[in-house]
Amino acid sequence: MLELLAQGIDHISSRELAEQMGLTASQIRQDLNHFGGFGQYGYGYGISYLKDALARILGIDHTYEVIIIGAGFLGKAIANHAPTEKPTFIVQALFDIDPQCIGTVTGGVPILDMQELEEYLSKHHIDIAVLTLPPGAAPAAAERLARAGVSGIWNFSSVDLKVTVPEVVIENVHLSDSLMTLSYYLNHK
Amino acid sequence: MLELLAQGIDHISSRELAEQMGLTASQIRQDLNHFGGFGQYGYGYGISYLKDALARILGIDHTYEVIIIGAGFLGKAIANHAPTEKPTFIVQALFDIDPQCIGTVTGGVPILDMQELEEYLSKHHIDIAVLTLPPGAAPAAAERLARAGVSGIWNFSSVDLKVTVPEVVIENVHLSDSLMTLSYYLNHK
Repeated sequence: MLELLAQGIDHISSRELAEQMGLTASQIRQDLNHFGGFGQYGYGYGISYLKDALARILGIDHTYEVIIIGAGFLGKAIANHAPTEKPTFIVQALFDIDPQCIGTVTGGVPILDMQELEEYLSKHHIDIAVLTLPPGAAPAAAERLARAGVSGIWNFSSVDLKVTVPEVVIENVHLSDSLMTLSYYLNHK
Repeated sequence: MLELLAQGIDHISSRELAEQMGLTASQIRQDLNHFGGFGQYGYGYGISYLKDALARILGIDHTYEVIIIGAGFLGKAIANHAPTEKPTFIVQALFDIDPQCIGTVTGGVPILDMQELEEYLSKHHIDIAVLTLPPGAAPAAAERLARAGVSGIWNFSSVDLKVTVPEVVIENVHLSDSLMTLSYYLNHK
């Protein structure tokens, strides 16, 4: 979408969009109609309007305050990856139990003591917690986050998590599934 | 599968398997039949046999030699995450362009000079390269890897990659898709 705008293209047909995305035109039209049709028959989609509509649908038309639980390499990778210009997801703090790293800063983000999690969350509005903990420590951390009022958990801990607060949205990331997809195709070329 | 074996359960019905996986029994039967039926009608699946069959299907019944291109936090996270006991994916080396880290070791894995990539690959059999580079540097690195004989690329660089060697399998990881899934559900509860 941003690429098309950068190229100065302001309209696109469902067929052209489909070609760029590896889908069929009818899939595109059906998917977009699901959220209320915003194309014009025979005229396609206005790209700037489509971009705003998709951002609204995906919920990335506003910002989210984020903390990361676990300041290992993966936690630091996520903290340091955040774009500096107009970020949608704003990392406010990392939490860890290791006294060696508590009190230090990575990518401009402070690493705080996991013992102070509830106190921190009582004072700061946080939408999303990213879990980059070992599998054994993840369920208890998720439960603490849910009870302290976090709305969403992005879970990299390689165990599927459930919490007792039903409103909390959990997105489990399964990197090993992706690696096994690769090994599958390596053996079924 | 491993959990069931650990519990001493040696047979499972498609219905029980479906419950554990959040699928329907008919989906399970259909999916497994696709690879040659290995259940017995009314008797279910032998778990040990099923585990071996799935490992064979997924191509994780043998090991892969792996290198990581990019020794930033994400590259180091992957190098340090590898299980020490019976690993399927064996990380042999990381490559980087930063003189500060070239020659050091992380998680027992040496960080080598990216300039020596082709020479290294001419001497070592490597199946998979993991790309944890910035988007701008990823396409050229992928092309070098493909030409130097790597079979698969696990791409974390957030741009979809293509290479001129058609046999090379590329698995693009889109972590931002997963984060947007979370933001979508946070806004459509």
